[in-house]
This record gives sequence, structure tokens and C-alpha cells, in this order.
Amino acid sequence: MKIDVHFEPAASLADRTGSTVVVIDVLRATSSIVEALANGAQGVFPVPSTEEAIRLASSLGREDTILCGEARGLIIEGFDLGNSPREFSAERVAGKRLVMSTTNGTRAFFLVEDAVRVLACSFMNLGAVAAEVMEAASIVVVCAGKEGQFSLDDAVCAGALVQRIRTAAGTDVELNDAAMGAVEMALTFRVNAHFLASTSTGQQLIENGFREDLDICAEIDRHSVVPEMDDRVIQLPSLDAGSSGPTA
Amino acid sequence: MKIDVHFEPAASLADRTGSTVVVIDVLRATSSIVEALANGAQGVFPVPSTEEAIRLASSLGREDTILCGEARGLIIEGFDLGNSPREFSAERVAGKRLVMSTTNGTRAFFLVEDAVRVLACSFMNLGAVAAEVMEAASIVVVCAGKEGQFSLDDAVCAGALVQRIRTAAGTDVELNDAAMGAVEMALTFRVNAHFLASTSTGQQLIENGFREDLDICAEIDRHSVVPEMDDRVIQLPSLDAGSSGPTA
Repeated sequence: MKIDVHFEPAASLADRTGSTVVVIDVLRATSSIVEALANGAQGVFPVPSTEEAIRLASSLGREDTILCGEARGLIIEGFDLGNSPREFSAERVAGKRLVMSTTNGTRAFFLVEDAVRVLACSFMNLGAVAAEVMEAASIVVVCAGKEGQFSLDDAVCAGALVQRIRTAAGTDVELNDAAMGAVEMALTFRVNAHFLASTSTGQQLIENGFREDLDICAEIDRHSVVPEMDDRVIQLPSLDAGSSGPTA
Repeated sequence: MKIDVHFEPAASLADRTGSTVVVIDVLRATSSIVEALANGAQGVFPVPSTEEAIRLASSLGREDTILCGEARGLIIEGFDLGNSPREFSAERVAGKRLVMSTTNGTRAFFLVEDAVRVLACSFMNLGAVAAEVMEAASIVVVCAGKEGQFSLDDAVCAGALVQRIRTAAGTDVELNDAAMGAVEMALTFRVNAHFLASTSTGQQLIENGFREDLDICAEIDRHSVVPEMDDRVIQLPSLDAGSSGPTA
């Protein structure tokens, strides 16, 4: 087994055709995706821009479609919801399609579209993702980062994932340099809201009034779901994929 | 004091006008630059390509000019020396100008040309660089990386540098996410030839027959020199900068 970690999406543009890709954006895209799907959302459509979100929501039909996301950590005018996992309660999202535009997270999903499988991971579903990829020969972990830069929260989550896989698999796991570094960071930093508050993205969230999001985003194994992207929709495997397509 | 670490040169393209920049390429550009200047080389001219190296060497005059460097870890045909610090003995380099082409290291120098100061750092001159930058308000540490990807050897060296500066400065040092991560990696990995051999670049060097280079590159504080780039030449401050220019 081989695990490569990339601290920024741009570094992972090479051919991933044979790999299982895991996308991590702890603050907050993949944490929100995990929370929304665990609370019964039908599917999440990640889009790379506000304009694309509005266009897709029109195409899907506004009934049962929720426009959500953020631009630089702030709510977008005219959207139904932001990108706080606390907003994605069962009351709000069960049975709904979510069109989600975020600064870094959704972009990462579109850089890896040609992979065999693309999964969404955060601290909130770490164990479920680790168990899901145990049989993969090649795993690529892509950190969403922050505007093309290294994010400590994503790196530590990547390291925690690699460490769980490696522990379960035994010693025969080949790691790239970033995976080796990430594991050491995961073994050093204690994951909690205080840790997330020390990161650059965490500080920005606090400034924007989202301090409480850090508690939920730091909740390791809060859910056991494994969101997977297929044909531009992120869903849980047990749901019927056919019902969520724009023209189905 | 503020210290930003960037694990790849591309991430550091933002305005660095007010900053002191430290370039790190442990395997092997900045290790070789430190060794060559400590052994009396007049100056090192980093160039981003083999063609540029040949052109500059002709312009400088071949007398007293040594063509050196590597392409993907291998010696370049027609060059006088490779990029092994063990080649840069006083007998070979004292009083000479070195035109150096390397895959990643010299490129990093050219991405930060507009900084106030640009220094070269490796494990071999860690303490000297730390002491030199103690008065700077803003320090940017740029890891050369490996073909645009994260290199663990450079990251650990960056972390060791940040840790030395921070320890000497007290607690009032603002770190970016990558600097925080790098410090933890530096506190975890024990720096020696065995550690360097575990990295991607180290493995490539061993395959190419340069295992012995890892010993010298891991020698912390072997020299107390601080190479500084000015007008495209890397020199020690005590040397007369005017004597090494191409048209002087």
C-alpha cells in the first residue's frame, strides 16, 4: 500500500486514475459535507464559484435545493445557508440537494475528478474513511489548504488519517515526504477547538463569529459516514444516486 | 517578529519587499553553497537552467569560473563539477566563481529576488543564519522542495531554524501554519544521515551513488557562514562584492 499526502491541491494535479483520493477541508467544507449527509441530505454538489452555484441551483430546480457556501469565510448574499456545519441540521437538510460553493474545499474536489474514487474526510468521520480505504493499493490525500497555501488543520487531519490506516494495515505502507511529516504533526498536536483556533483559518473563523464551529469540527468520529463524489455529486453510498441528477 | 514558512517556492510569490528571505535546499544546493563559500569560493551564481549556466560562464570568462550543478540529481555533461558538497574542497574552489545550475534550489532564489535580503541556509549553517536574522521584523523561509512538491528534509531544516530563532527571541514570535507545523517536525525527527536517507530526495541521491553526501548535509553547524545573494551573486559579506560582477 502506498499513501501520498499533498498539502495543497495544485501539487496533486498529476494522474490519479488508479488512486483512491481523499479530500480534506477541515474548516469547513468537508466537515459540513459530513454533517449534512449524516443528517439526511440527498447529496452535495460542490461548485467552484458563486456564479456556478446559482446557475446549478436554477438547473436543478429551487424546490428541494439549498444554496449554501461561503466566500473567504463569509455568507454569500442571497444564499440560503452559509458553510457552518451547525446550520446543516436534519430539520433543514434532510431530503434536500445542497449546492455548495466554498473558497478552497470544493475546488479541491474538481482537481481530482479523474480518480477512481473521491471521498470527503474531516476529523468528524476519520475512522469511517480509514476503514473504507483499507483495501486500496494507492491512496492520495489532498488537503484543500487556504488560498493555495498550507493549512495546519488539514495537514494534521491528513496525518491522523494516515496514522489510522498505517496502524490497521501493519508496517508495509509506503509514505511520501508529506505523509511522513503529516503523521508526526498528527502525533504532536492534540486535536480540539483550541488547536483549531491556533490555525490561520481558525483565527479567521473566530474573527467572523464562527468560534462555535471549531468545537464540532474538532469532534473526532462524530459520524461514521463516508461521503463519495460520483458524477459531480457527493453522496452516501446507500442513497439512490439516480434521483439527484439535474435532468433525471 | 513574524516568521512565515513556505514548503514550496510557488507559494511564496507574494510581495516580499519588506522581508528577509531564507532559502533552504538541504539536498543539496544550499548545503553545497555553504560548503563552497566556507572553503573560499569567491561567489556562487545560481542559474535556473543548464543553458543559462553555459551562457553565464562564457560571459564571466572560463578562467576562474567553475561550471557546476545537477539535473534531477545527476551530473551535467561538460560541467566541471556536480552538486555534491564533497566536491567543493578549498583546493578546487578557493578564489573561484561558481556558476551553479540545480533542479530546485537555484530556482527558489529567483522567485524571491525582490526581498530586502536573501540568505542561503542548510543544516550546515543553521546557527549562523539564526543569529543573523534575529533583528529582522519579518522573516520568510522558502523551502526549495522537489519539483514543486513538499520535501521533508527542507521542512525539518526550516522548523529547526524557526525553533532556534524563537528560542533566542522569546515567545513573541508570530508563526504561520507552515512554520508551526515545521517546528513540530523539527522537534520530532532526529537529524542525521539516516533521517535524510528516509526522504524522497535522499533516496534518489542514494540511487545515484551519493550516499556519503547525506553525512555532510546532516552536519548541523559545520560552518558559521551566512551566504547572501545580492545582484544575482551569492557571497559571504566579508568578501568584496565588486570583484565578482560579470562586467566589473
